[in-house]
Order: sequence, then C-alpha cells, then structure tokens
Amino acid sequence: MQGSRFLILADGEFGPLTSKTANSVIRYRPERIAAVLDRQHAGKTVQDVLGFGGATPVLGSMTEALKLRPDAVLIGIAPVGGKLPEEWRAWLLEAVDAGCSIWSGLHTFIGDDTAIAARAKARGTEIYDFRRPPANLPVASGKAKHVEPFVILTVGTDCNVGKMTSQLQITQKLNERGLRTRFVATGQTGIMIEGWGIAVDAVVADFIAGAAEWLVLEGSKDADIVLVEGQGSLNHPGYSGVTCGLLHGSCPDALILCHQATRDYIGDYRKAGWLKIPPLSDYVKLYEGVAGFVHPTKTIGISLNTYDMTEAEARAACEAATRETGLPCTDPVRFDPSPLIDAVARARAEYVATRAQRVFEPA
Amino acid sequence: MQGSRFLILADGEFGPLTSKTANSVIRYRPERIAAVLDRQHAGKTVQDVLGFGGATPVLGSMTEALKLRPDAVLIGIAPVGGKLPEEWRAWLLEAVDAGCSIWSGLHTFIGDDTAIAARAKARGTEIYDFRRPPANLPVASGKAKHVEPFVILTVGTDCNVGKMTSQLQITQKLNERGLRTRFVATGQTGIMIEGWGIAVDAVVADFIAGAAEWLVLEGSKDADIVLVEGQGSLNHPGYSGVTCGLLHGSCPDALILCHQATRDYIGDYRKAGWLKIPPLSDYVKLYEGVAGFVHPTKTIGISLNTYDMTEAEARAACEAATRETGLPCTDPVRFDPSPLIDAVARARAEYVATRAQRVFEPA
Repeated sequence: MQGSRFLILADGEFGPLTSKTANSVIRYRPERIAAVLDRQHAGKTVQDVLGFGGATPVLGSMTEALKLRPDAVLIGIAPVGGKLPEEWRAWLLEAVDAGCSIWSGLHTFIGDDTAIAARAKARGTEIYDFRRPPANLPVASGKAKHVEPFVILTVGTDCNVGKMTSQLQITQKLNERGLRTRFVATGQTGIMIEGWGIAVDAVVADFIAGAAEWLVLEGSKDADIVLVEGQGSLNHPGYSGVTCGLLHGSCPDALILCHQATRDYIGDYRKAGWLKIPPLSDYVKLYEGVAGFVHPTKTIGISLNTYDMTEAEARAACEAATRETGLPCTDPVRFDPSPLIDAVARARAEYVATRAQRVFEPA
Repeated sequence: MQGSRFLILADGEFGPLTSKTANSVIRYRPERIAAVLDRQHAGKTVQDVLGFGGATPVLGSMTEALKLRPDAVLIGIAPVGGKLPEEWRAWLLEAVDAGCSIWSGLHTFIGDDTAIAARAKARGTEIYDFRRPPANLPVASGKAKHVEPFVILTVGTDCNVGKMTSQLQITQKLNERGLRTRFVATGQTGIMIEGWGIAVDAVVADFIAGAAEWLVLEGSKDADIVLVEGQGSLNHPGYSGVTCGLLHGSCPDALILCHQATRDYIGDYRKAGWLKIPPLSDYVKLYEGVAGFVHPTKTIGISLNTYDMTEAEARAACEAATRETGLPCTDPVRFDPSPLIDAVARARAEYVATRAQRVFEPA
C-alpha cells in the first residue's frame, strides 16, 4: 500500500480548518495526491483552498476523478453524524469497480459494508479501515523500556493542538541531519501518512498500553530515534485514559509538550465554562510525574501552534513559554524548528552516553 | 435477571485463590447459589473448599446439577488459554436446553458461539456476556461532577488488591446505618453480583471515561452515596489507561486507597525485577493530583487486604498505614470496618453541608 496515488474524498468540507486528515496527508505526502473530490470547490486547485498543496485539482465528480487513475480513495473528512452517506457509498462502489483501494479512518468500518466489501473482493482491491484494531494485542509488559533507540513522545494540553504535526516536522529535520528516525503513528491520519500504525483510541481499553508497546518495538528496528505521535491530554475529561495508556506503554525517554497558544479551555467543554487549561509548567510536572512511575522521562521542549496569531504575537508566545518553563520553544511549522531539533539531539547524545550504564543498573 | 439461582461453573479451579469471580459471588450472594460444578471437589460443600459459603454442594456433573433446578449457569473461572473448552460447550448446551440463562465475564463471548446462541434462542433463554460493551457509549462530558449523591471511588496500588470487595463491605455497613447506597460495578464480577454495570476494561479506549460517567449518572438515582468499583492502578504499566479514564469519568468526591499489605511488586512484572510498589503516601498524592485536574477529590481512608498475615501482623500493618498517611485504615473483611464507615459518613456530611454553595460557584 506504500506507493498509492490518492483521490481524497472531502466533499462539502474541504478547507483549512474543516478537513484535518485530508490536509495533513496533503502536507506530508503531496507527491501522492492525484486530486481532491469536493463539489463545493470544484475547478479550484488545492493551493487555492488551503494556501498550500500546489496545482493538484479539486474535482466535482467521481467519474471525472477516476480519469486521473488514482489507485486509492482516501476518506479525508468524517461525514456529519458519523454514518456513511448514500452518495459516498455510490462513489466508493464506483471507485472500487475501477480498481481503487479504500483508505478510511472512520469509526464506522467501510469493510463492514457488505456491498462495498463484496465488490472489493470481486475486483481484488483492499479496504483499509485504520481504526480497526489488530487482533491479539498484548497487555503491556514493559519491553519498551529496553529498546535501543531514543524514544520521544509528544504530549499535549488538549486534543488537536499539533502532536502529530510536531513529530512529523521534527522527523523531517532530524533526517536532514543524518539521523535514522521512525515516526510511530497512533491515530488514523498518522497511519495514512506513514502507511502503518495503530489507532490507539480504538483498541479495547485493556490493551492501550500494549498497543503502544508493540508500536515502539516495531518502530525501533533500524532507528536511532523513535518519534511517537501523542494522543489527547492527561487532563482531558474524555480521553485521558488513552493518553495515560500511551504514556506508560511507550516508555518515552523524552517528552515534547504541545500547545495551541491562543487556546484557554479544553476542547468541547468550554460551553460548560469548563475546563480552563492550566499553566504549561503544571503540565510538565503532571506528565513527568505520572510517566515516572513506570519509566523516568523529562520534557525537553515546547511545541507551540500559533497558526491564528500575528508573527509578533507568535514570537512573544514562544518567548513567554520558555520563560515559564525554562525549555526551548518554537512553532515548528511556522518558524525554524532548530530549537526543538537541537534539544532532541542534545538529549539523545546524553541518552547514548549513559545508556550502557543504565541498562546494567538494577531496576 | 435479578432473581436468578446460580449453578457456578468452576471445573478444575474451584479454590480460595483460584476462582475469584465464583468466590465473590458466593460471598455476596450466598442465598442465590444452587451448586458449584467442579469434578475435582465433587461431593464436598462450598464451605469445605473455601472456608465460607455453607452447605451448598459441589457437584461433578451437569446432569446432576440441573436436577437442583438452577435458572442460570454462571461461569466462575476463566478457562486456561482463554478459549471455551469443548467440554464446557457441551455443558452450556445442556444447561440452555434445560432453560438456564448463561452469565459470563469471559473475553470470548458466549453469545458469539453460533450453536449455543441458536439453542438459547430456540429455548427462549438469555446469554449475558458482561464484558461485551454496550453500543453507543458517549465521550465523557463532565456530567458526573454535578450528581447529587456523594461519589466514592476505590483506587489501588495494583490489580486484585480488594477494590471491589472494599466497596461491597462498605456498602453493606452504610446500608445498616440507614443510608441509601448504590454500588456501581465496573468489572465482570461486580456486574454478576449487582446485576448491572459495564466492564470498563472492555470498552473502546475513547469511551472509558464516558462509560464511567454513564454508570455514575445511572447509579445516582435514589442514592445518598454512590460507591464506584475501581480498576487497576494509575501506575500499572498495562492497565493505567483504564484507571485514569475511570478516575476522570466518574468524578469522585472521595477516594479510598486499597492495598494488599504483603505485596511489594506490581502484578505480573515481578519476574522482571520490576515494578516496586511505592509508598502509600505517594499514591495519595498521585491519585489526588491527577483526579484534581478534572474534579477535586481527597483520599479519606485506606483499605488493607491482610488475608495472608497473622492477626497481630495485620493490626500492625493497619497502624503503620495510618502513621504514614494520617488516614483511617482497616481490613474491612477481616476487622471492624467502622474506621472506613465513619470516614465516609464524616466526608459525606461535609459534602452535603457545602454542596449548595459549591453548585453555585463559577467553574
């Protein structure tokens, strides 16, 4: 599935703030996008709609899109209400008949749609439901403590602040410095970009840490640095269990704390006048404290998402974060990511220098 | 399903340390046990094998057991290797044909066995797979913060230290004092004892806190005190995600910390020389700290499981725990549970006295 050329389905929702999965795949795998399907923006380019992504066309019909010979349809938005609309089913059937595989991160599994599954089987194409957990996940055993590479996990003040994007930006820059990296995807968008991973929010609760451990062991092959995509937040009222399992299962040697600078309240709870995001330094203590019961770790930098600030505001926000926490901080999408890359390189050098003695220490 | 008379299936494993589910159901619902099926102990009484449970017979065949006219077969042990042995299938089919319902907390769902499911349907009996999560669980919304009853969660230093048993002992004693209680089961054994609940370790990871919230809202009807069964431990390398989701989703007003006094290492990790159980006072800080990001709470007592100590050792252990933490401590199964009951009553009185003003405080 590595070499696919995607038609991205984002009908009615393609836009800078509305199609997170589509946009991330376009940002990190631009060479693999054949077209986007969105009747609302048909005739424009991806660049016109997103401000990046180049001349890739946005088209208004599946028939037209299939003429570009994509080999996979990637579902780039979640349908409103969660159920697959009839129109989408017809499009997916048309695409399957043309030999496309289907890539989906929806909670509703496309492979469970008997008509689509039967047609895909007849045509010999695959349906990838990236939220479907693999069978036989283990309970975590602590093996991730002992992998050789330096393991970094991004953690956040909330959902959707840039934990995946930070890791992808850092991965790219570390590669340029000649380090062997492995990005470990833990959510559906990351899996679509990287081609493998497990959506840890979709596994049975007893196996969250086990899934994270399996991912780190897999990711440790032929890598100097393993960069694990974080999920949720340890103080998120809905999703903290996923965050905690990921934190303990992946046994990170270092954390990078991600925050969206203008956000004051956690996620969807603001309407209830609840839950104010505490200071970054409280998060540093919380994450290091909870992680440390299983594997010692330290926060080595802050990644700030400043997309909705002026440049001056953004630079001031980064400086304020450094003043508060004493840690290097940047917006690795907007500004030079070097402060974070240097922090990673320093922490890894120290890890390598002391690893031999730590391995032989009694537990 | 409330009034069932159980035949407990515990073949080859019935014993004080080997059949946790069977034993807990016998301890808390003795009037509902018709017999236990275990060929190894056939001819004895439950009292002979467990040291409690009275004259209830242990029998060696399903045919014999069905003559006692149970109306449900309760699977009281997990089969070795997790898969349903052929012998058990034959027994369950025989029981279903005799009109028994099946109660199971196995990870392998009995209802997914097509032969058993078909025969149960034909006979008009039910199969209860208590680990099967309900459909359409919500993401937690924080509603459990605002329920009227006083909510207590048991938390632990590890799995299998007495979090369910502590709540059941406390529930019983509070009832004797005339308080309206509701025990909220979060694991399969608790559900079998109480007749309702959700096994929160078996839900999809994103919905752990949502399941806990739903349980607390349900449990709050007509109750003065809601006693939520805890799961796992917040520093357990495998299961901490479940614990964290339960802690944040249930929004407890108070915690009772449970520990088995002679245990030094967490669960199955000891063989790896890992993971030493930290001091109780560290757990108090950890649980209160993490919980407090979502809902303020405090630890009001320690419940110590001393089953493998002499009486003098057990009393000394309780005193040491009180010295270390400043909290009342007892073994509520072995000794007078009053120290914990008094602590609950005091904390609830304070909660009731200050609730009005807290409800109208800004968040």
